[in-house]
Amino acid sequence: MERNKREELLSRLPFWGDLSPMQKQRSIDASRIIEFKKGTPVHNCCCGQGECLGLLLIQTGSVRTFILSQEGREVTIFRLFAGDVCLFSASCVIKQITFDTHIVAEEDTTALIFSAGMLADLIRENLAVERYIYTSAVERFSEVMQVFQNLLFMSLEQRIANFLREESNRTKSSEIRLTHEQVAKHTGSAREAVTRTLKGFAEEGVVELKRGKIVITDPDALSDICG
Amino acid sequence: MERNKREELLSRLPFWGDLSPMQKQRSIDASRIIEFKKGTPVHNCCCGQGECLGLLLIQTGSVRTFILSQEGREVTIFRLFAGDVCLFSASCVIKQITFDTHIVAEEDTTALIFSAGMLADLIRENLAVERYIYTSAVERFSEVMQVFQNLLFMSLEQRIANFLREESNRTKSSEIRLTHEQVAKHTGSAREAVTRTLKGFAEEGVVELKRGKIVITDPDALSDICG
Repeated sequence: MERNKREELLSRLPFWGDLSPMQKQRSIDASRIIEFKKGTPVHNCCCGQGECLGLLLIQTGSVRTFILSQEGREVTIFRLFAGDVCLFSASCVIKQITFDTHIVAEEDTTALIFSAGMLADLIRENLAVERYIYTSAVERFSEVMQVFQNLLFMSLEQRIANFLREESNRTKSSEIRLTHEQVAKHTGSAREAVTRTLKGFAEEGVVELKRGKIVITDPDALSDICG
Repeated sequence: MERNKREELLSRLPFWGDLSPMQKQRSIDASRIIEFKKGTPVHNCCCGQGECLGLLLIQTGSVRTFILSQEGREVTIFRLFAGDVCLFSASCVIKQITFDTHIVAEEDTTALIFSAGMLADLIRENLAVERYIYTSAVERFSEVMQVFQNLLFMSLEQRIANFLREESNRTKSSEIRLTHEQVAKHTGSAREAVTRTLKGFAEEGVVELKRGKIVITDPDALSDICG
């Protein structure tokens, strides 16, 4: 039963059709489905140190990937939702990735873990897997570059407005159910600065601030702030 | 004569030995050696728009790769010196790179340009080339990530101290022949802030500021600032 579930999840990987029947069986054997409670760490990679999880396929829930300063400041670099694949949790098998990331469950999350060892074998054995891993890594890095570019070049107002707009598009709702602290982590800023900025938005009638949520009341004005 | 020079430069590419004799001949035909005067743009990539140069092999001199804000602020993401290869000038043939970069000659520079069209052909035809391009891209991205992490998490003092130390190691000299404006571009900061910080370093006896150069007088103190 659980084995069928694992196979079903694995079959969504773009390289699945390129595996031999034997490689498919070994992959199913080398995977497991794990539940992560909201707020628990999924992966703490210090390249070359610590555990290496493997490829992560999100089944339900969501995880947040961030970088961490020595002082403990977190900057979110991307989030993953149902159906997404995380490579950075398998960075031990991609020696060109020399970059430390941390992953935490944003809500109760179920994910399939494809073991790092099996992935390393497949990268060696199967060209389609190698190609998938490297092209995906370059794609992901390109996205992260954009995030950094926004952090360096956009004002805090623009970053918060962009985040609210993206979050509203993603959830198909004008109600963003996040705390100011969470918005701060997603936009690479401090909680106090987020509260101040959101109050400014509220005074201009762009949002309404309610307990535990932010309601977008003027999406056009929000888009104007995004620039 | 020039053809021999091109072949000699191309033979330094790690995948050269994996090309067929015919692919080698075509590669030599599809390359040219170009001189860039100090300060001239080598490449202005707006992904999907504008010209696409191809792979760049620096023969002499150096180039600086940077990102550019809408307001014209430049942030250096890496520099290349004799023997280095630049992929980002061929980003049109690596569709996963969706990231805009600009490249400028820092001094009079000679480089071999391996045409984008030929590179695209080789990526399709030859697995060693495809592998080289994608693993190099992931490596380079990892380095750039570190640069961004430093920009986000390190103080300006630390960034300037780090830059001076690296530059001193690279040139094997305690004299850094750069203007404050140049140091500002390399450390992602403003000229005024660099001047202020360097004056602070000078007052502490870490450096001496002379016309057109910065002399490191206390390398241990400089390392202490790097942290």
